[in-house]
Amino acid sequence: MTDEAAAFVPGHVTGFFSAHPDEDSSIAGSRGAGVALSHGVDVRVVRGSDGNDVGVTLNGDPIDVAPVAAVLDDLDASDARVVAETPLPLGAGFGVSGAMALGTAYAVNAAYGRSRSENELVGLAHAAEVEAGTGLGDVVAQARGGLPIRLEPGAPEHGRLDGIPASPRVEYISFGSVSTEDVLSGDTSTLTAAGERALADLRAEPTTDRLVELSRRFAREADLLTDRVADAVAAVRAEGGDAAMAMLGDTAFAFGDGLSSAGYDPEVCAVHPTGATLRPPRLDRFER
Amino acid sequence: MTDEAAAFVPGHVTGFFSAHPDEDSSIAGSRGAGVALSHGVDVRVVRGSDGNDVGVTLNGDPIDVAPVAAVLDDLDASDARVVAETPLPLGAGFGVSGAMALGTAYAVNAAYGRSRSENELVGLAHAAEVEAGTGLGDVVAQARGGLPIRLEPGAPEHGRLDGIPASPRVEYISFGSVSTEDVLSGDTSTLTAAGERALADLRAEPTTDRLVELSRRFAREADLLTDRVADAVAAVRAEGGDAAMAMLGDTAFAFGDGLSSAGYDPEVCAVHPTGATLRPPRLDRFER
Repeated sequence: MTDEAAAFVPGHVTGFFSAHPDEDSSIAGSRGAGVALSHGVDVRVVRGSDGNDVGVTLNGDPIDVAPVAAVLDDLDASDARVVAETPLPLGAGFGVSGAMALGTAYAVNAAYGRSRSENELVGLAHAAEVEAGTGLGDVVAQARGGLPIRLEPGAPEHGRLDGIPASPRVEYISFGSVSTEDVLSGDTSTLTAAGERALADLRAEPTTDRLVELSRRFAREADLLTDRVADAVAAVRAEGGDAAMAMLGDTAFAFGDGLSSAGYDPEVCAVHPTGATLRPPRLDRFER
Repeated sequence: MTDEAAAFVPGHVTGFFSAHPDEDSSIAGSRGAGVALSHGVDVRVVRGSDGNDVGVTLNGDPIDVAPVAAVLDDLDASDARVVAETPLPLGAGFGVSGAMALGTAYAVNAAYGRSRSENELVGLAHAAEVEAGTGLGDVVAQARGGLPIRLEPGAPEHGRLDGIPASPRVEYISFGSVSTEDVLSGDTSTLTAAGERALADLRAEPTTDRLVELSRRFAREADLLTDRVADAVAAVRAEGGDAAMAMLGDTAFAFGDGLSSAGYDPEVCAVHPTGATLRPPRLDRFER
């Protein structure tokens, strides 16, 4: 047990999804598929900070994130200081709130010696995210890494995952936010029907090309496509590539060099094959 | 689709286990817990080699590995050349045969464009390993990475995993081989009872300290402890550390600096937080 611990959680872009609400937040969740990103969120937790230092910051600024507060409460760590850093924009479809909740769970568990298993920590963060209305499937995907396919919704004791075995380069560009809460609190029957179709088609051919194609189709069928993402997708397709929209943000993503070939100046990262991980305490002592 | 692809699969040391045979090799498997290692197996597959180059090599030498042959057969890739490289010893409890089978499945899928999902590839490699009698649980653990706890046996559609959230340094020293086939084909009732007790205790407190302690206890209760590992464990404990035996090999492992503090000259690596992964085709194009 140390007084301080740090975790890294990959960002996650959902390409398509279906919503599966339930009164039990560990059963509630989403089916769908997406991409875990090497761009993610570093979360450092300091135990027993004095009153002035208690609280949560993101990139240096104080912030209220409901799922993080819920995780701190669940793990009895109200005197924690949570310091999160990320290059990803908040509210733009990268799962930053889920990553903060999951990273807080891993780091608090280590700093406070709570002796929870990974499934228990993922379950806490998933339930916190569902109850806050900020996401349905990012947490379990971020706990897995890679190109997660969410076969069954819910926390690890209920959900079931698969993945696409690939390691493509990823490009993305964000134009702004879409409110996850607004979409999830409205009528989700159309998007859920579209998401279930896309999942069945992806399972028949689990490749990155199909993931982008089905995600592009989903955004239109679910009536979620923004004008700027529609323009970006059209530009990428005109160059022979393919692109889709991040659920839920005014954000376009593509594999390979789709966006840059179309004249955009995207962020570039990799698929992150690893799920959320506790940072080794002293990396210099490792020989890899 | 390319004509060549490569995968990396972490080594895996099982600390304790219970055996759960079944006529259906995707249901058969083991419960237990272990450690995925940053020392692992690189597997490169070249498609459609000419007659002279077909076959499997490990560290440059031709080798027959039954689970690899079965995977090649399942994926209709009899003209593949499989080139495996590892710093780990074979038959000493590091899951090298499982890693070769799993790495072959991932690399063949990419090189031959077979469009299988990760669960499907893991399931193929798991069934091949079970049918060959060379292992029961390494493949699913190696597909997950980290410190895997195997809650339910079997391939991904049947099995269930959890993990210990930690990133310790790992030391190991191998004195020789133990035949997995001989142990698994004998009476496994004693070891299975000991393994089930250890699993229940680890689930109550999923930490690295408990994993080593319960693994040490298991080796003795299951009557599998070798003299040289017993000596190493005693020496580590005399220095205030703890160590256990790799199932199944004449191999001792410890976290932190347990073995080196006791005067041994161990190999040193890290927990590998990532499961089996396809190598990115052109790493120089990634910005991480």
